[in-house]
Amino acid sequence: MIFVQPIAEITVGTSVLAQPFFSFLNHPLLATANETGAEQSSLILAGVLVSLVVIYIASKVGGELCARINLPPVLGELVGGAVVGVSALHLLIFPESGSQAADSLIVKFLETTAGLTPESAASVFSAQSETISLLAELGVIILLFEIGLESDLKELIRVGPQAAVVAVVGVVAPFAAGTAGLIYLFNISAVPAIFAGAALTATSIGITAKVLAEIGRLSSTEGQIIIGAAVLDDVLGIIVLAVVASLAKTGEIEITNIIYLIISAAVFLVGAILIGRFLSPYFVGLVNEMKTRGQLLLTALIFAFILSYIASAIHLEAILGAFAAGLVLAETDKSRELEEQILPVADIFVPIFFVCVGAKTDLSVLNPAVPSNREGLIIAAFLIVTAIVGKVITGFTLWQPGINKLAVGVGMIPRGEVGLVFAGVGSASGALSESTEAAIIMMVISTTFIAPPLLRLVFKDKPDSADEIQLDSATSQDSSSN
Amino acid sequence: MIFVQPIAEITVGTSVLAQPFFSFLNHPLLATANETGAEQSSLILAGVLVSLVVIYIASKVGGELCARINLPPVLGELVGGAVVGVSALHLLIFPESGSQAADSLIVKFLETTAGLTPESAASVFSAQSETISLLAELGVIILLFEIGLESDLKELIRVGPQAAVVAVVGVVAPFAAGTAGLIYLFNISAVPAIFAGAALTATSIGITAKVLAEIGRLSSTEGQIIIGAAVLDDVLGIIVLAVVASLAKTGEIEITNIIYLIISAAVFLVGAILIGRFLSPYFVGLVNEMKTRGQLLLTALIFAFILSYIASAIHLEAILGAFAAGLVLAETDKSRELEEQILPVADIFVPIFFVCVGAKTDLSVLNPAVPSNREGLIIAAFLIVTAIVGKVITGFTLWQPGINKLAVGVGMIPRGEVGLVFAGVGSASGALSESTEAAIIMMVISTTFIAPPLLRLVFKDKPDSADEIQLDSATSQDSSSN
Repeated sequence: MIFVQPIAEITVGTSVLAQPFFSFLNHPLLATANETGAEQSSLILAGVLVSLVVIYIASKVGGELCARINLPPVLGELVGGAVVGVSALHLLIFPESGSQAADSLIVKFLETTAGLTPESAASVFSAQSETISLLAELGVIILLFEIGLESDLKELIRVGPQAAVVAVVGVVAPFAAGTAGLIYLFNISAVPAIFAGAALTATSIGITAKVLAEIGRLSSTEGQIIIGAAVLDDVLGIIVLAVVASLAKTGEIEITNIIYLIISAAVFLVGAILIGRFLSPYFVGLVNEMKTRGQLLLTALIFAFILSYIASAIHLEAILGAFAAGLVLAETDKSRELEEQILPVADIFVPIFFVCVGAKTDLSVLNPAVPSNREGLIIAAFLIVTAIVGKVITGFTLWQPGINKLAVGVGMIPRGEVGLVFAGVGSASGALSESTEAAIIMMVISTTFIAPPLLRLVFKDKPDSADEIQLDSATSQDSSSN
Repeated sequence: MIFVQPIAEITVGTSVLAQPFFSFLNHPLLATANETGAEQSSLILAGVLVSLVVIYIASKVGGELCARINLPPVLGELVGGAVVGVSALHLLIFPESGSQAADSLIVKFLETTAGLTPESAASVFSAQSETISLLAELGVIILLFEIGLESDLKELIRVGPQAAVVAVVGVVAPFAAGTAGLIYLFNISAVPAIFAGAALTATSIGITAKVLAEIGRLSSTEGQIIIGAAVLDDVLGIIVLAVVASLAKTGEIEITNIIYLIISAAVFLVGAILIGRFLSPYFVGLVNEMKTRGQLLLTALIFAFILSYIASAIHLEAILGAFAAGLVLAETDKSRELEEQILPVADIFVPIFFVCVGAKTDLSVLNPAVPSNREGLIIAAFLIVTAIVGKVITGFTLWQPGINKLAVGVGMIPRGEVGLVFAGVGSASGALSESTEAAIIMMVISTTFIAPPLLRLVFKDKPDSADEIQLDSATSQDSSSN
């Protein structure tokens, strides 16, 4: 991807400007590495623009349709993504799933309309896909930052013990039941059974949090328990992956690694919040001193990106850092203003994440015409039931009276991306058979797509509390308070 | 950059989650292409996060310092970029300028703190740089969309004839004077002289528009003349490049290409505005029908990105499409709301563009210790004078009374990225000597960095009109109206 440009040192924004023109002239003097780099860079931009148009149209069409039939818009974004993605239209596909440039309708479109040559199609395709994937990752970071901002640290600490129980039960129950069931009911050997069991553990915080925000329940007690449990669950998921991978590697559990992970996660989360609270008066002071545009938003994002980087560098997840940053800044008196400013930013970044999740999901594993899928379907049915029941029971461990226990359990159902990491690792290590892998993917698809409407349904049962925040008032016609 | 992942079809967001962990375990079973892809993807995200932190810190430190000494903040962003870029700290450097991964301090930082291996440093570096370059390009697209939204189509049409004269004189005068001077004063042969003369023609619309917005003069008559002229100037610049490149190729001017360019530019600008105005009631109706979050912003961006893509596909520039989209939407009754929502988005995207422009500018061409720079310095002095005088006189072609003619001329001074395209094309074609190329770069640096403070200075001379819009009220302490 390195386009050597003989100009050396200075091409200041040239990629933005006047470059498509080169392709038009086809000047032989210009047909150097320089031209290739410049022209490609312009075509990559064109590809990214078309991809964003496709993503935004998919997210809005899907979201609006879901809102009209009273389903959470995020489900529509996932389905919209699946429609434009690898399962159907092949507009938004990614090289890491084995797709080639020639499979991409956007690449074909660029070849027809923007003069993309078949020779440079592969590199334009991979660069454009990489950029969109990165924008999606920034999208989920910004989503978790926003969720952190909307959360209430005191409430989270208050419900902490209950969230911890929900998280631990929600990891142990599906893991134990899933592994045991696969071994005893399906005669699958221990290592693949443990991998599949482990894939049942981690809740997808992004999908749950987005639905909670959409129905205006994020700051309810149930919402905060779910968020707290999902964050802990994420950490536990990383630890379970460490245990499982270590088991597959040496047949033993490397205790030191596990201890290292537990300590670093605890130190990071507690440390980020303590140091953040200590620093937050300086943050407010600094922002008040600043005179240029964007002072609050950029200073907040600098803080969020630094914590995201640290979380990622110590082998946690970037989104945990973004969440911690949001949580700390929610305590400052700039939080309202920041929430308002982050809203349009989240509006343009977050749909990229959800549409990409949908686009990357290959629904062909659901096709019963493929033999391994048929075998997988039976295992999948078992995994799906275990996945749902294993999380729903967690709500009933809660001891605080007056809580919608079912809602907490349902909120923990979606597995999303994390389960797929397990499927990927298991498949790469050769531990998982094709049918077990397909079953895990079916489990992830089902829990991810079922959870949003279920969550809306169970929250309907209980009248609204008055103090909840309408993060998304436009879509919460049925949960109201406005 | 294609990371083949054996999981096939489904890695839904895995790159975001739990991946850094793989590097920590160093599991031999995982040491496949899958691991490499997943781990790299996580490291690329880490690199992008660190780069964004560096960019935002550079933009805010530079911007705040400039605001305090009463200079336009955008100058601070350019200087901040130069400080973190290839000229000084080597934090933010780009492969297309010949930099290697080993030169990048961010890559070193990732190696030290996030477990980046020297083997994957090159690909992480190029992917991260490519993403940042693309975010910068999206930044200037969003800037021009915002400028379009802030502009007034009726006023632009009213001042159109004057803007056209300013644009034409501003292209012809520096081109003729520069080429003639280089041939007769410096005995440079015709082709390089024409290239250098052509590099003097095109105004950088981004820098001028940003400064006008910062001092609250965008919607003044002078501001609209400058914007209108800069847009036409951009189109003329593309045509001049076509003429020059065609001249260098065949010794003749390919009339058909030139005519094609002129017609497509005219059809695009007029067509986009006419069709856009025809469609805008449907746009408003559609947005009013929508119920999900971000409906206005995303629908507007879909429109802007489509026009940007078309402009880029017909060999104009993407930014012209974004400007046209902003101009059309400014006419709708959603324009205020849209302006408010685009503000935070511009706040996080636009600084990436200006800091990258600064970071990519190699100030070492200004070092007189290098022989070719010494020769270049004399030619540069001539080019700088020609560049400034050639644009300043354009203001005095204006016939409308009561206009700050000097301000219009000064507003056309910055050359920015466009001049460097000429230097790059000339250098790649072998037409330019090293010293002439260095002189062009010095001219671009000087006009880009001189214009913002000059523009603020000349606008100070005249009292404010009451009806101007404060796009950036925080930084306009001295131009006020608030």
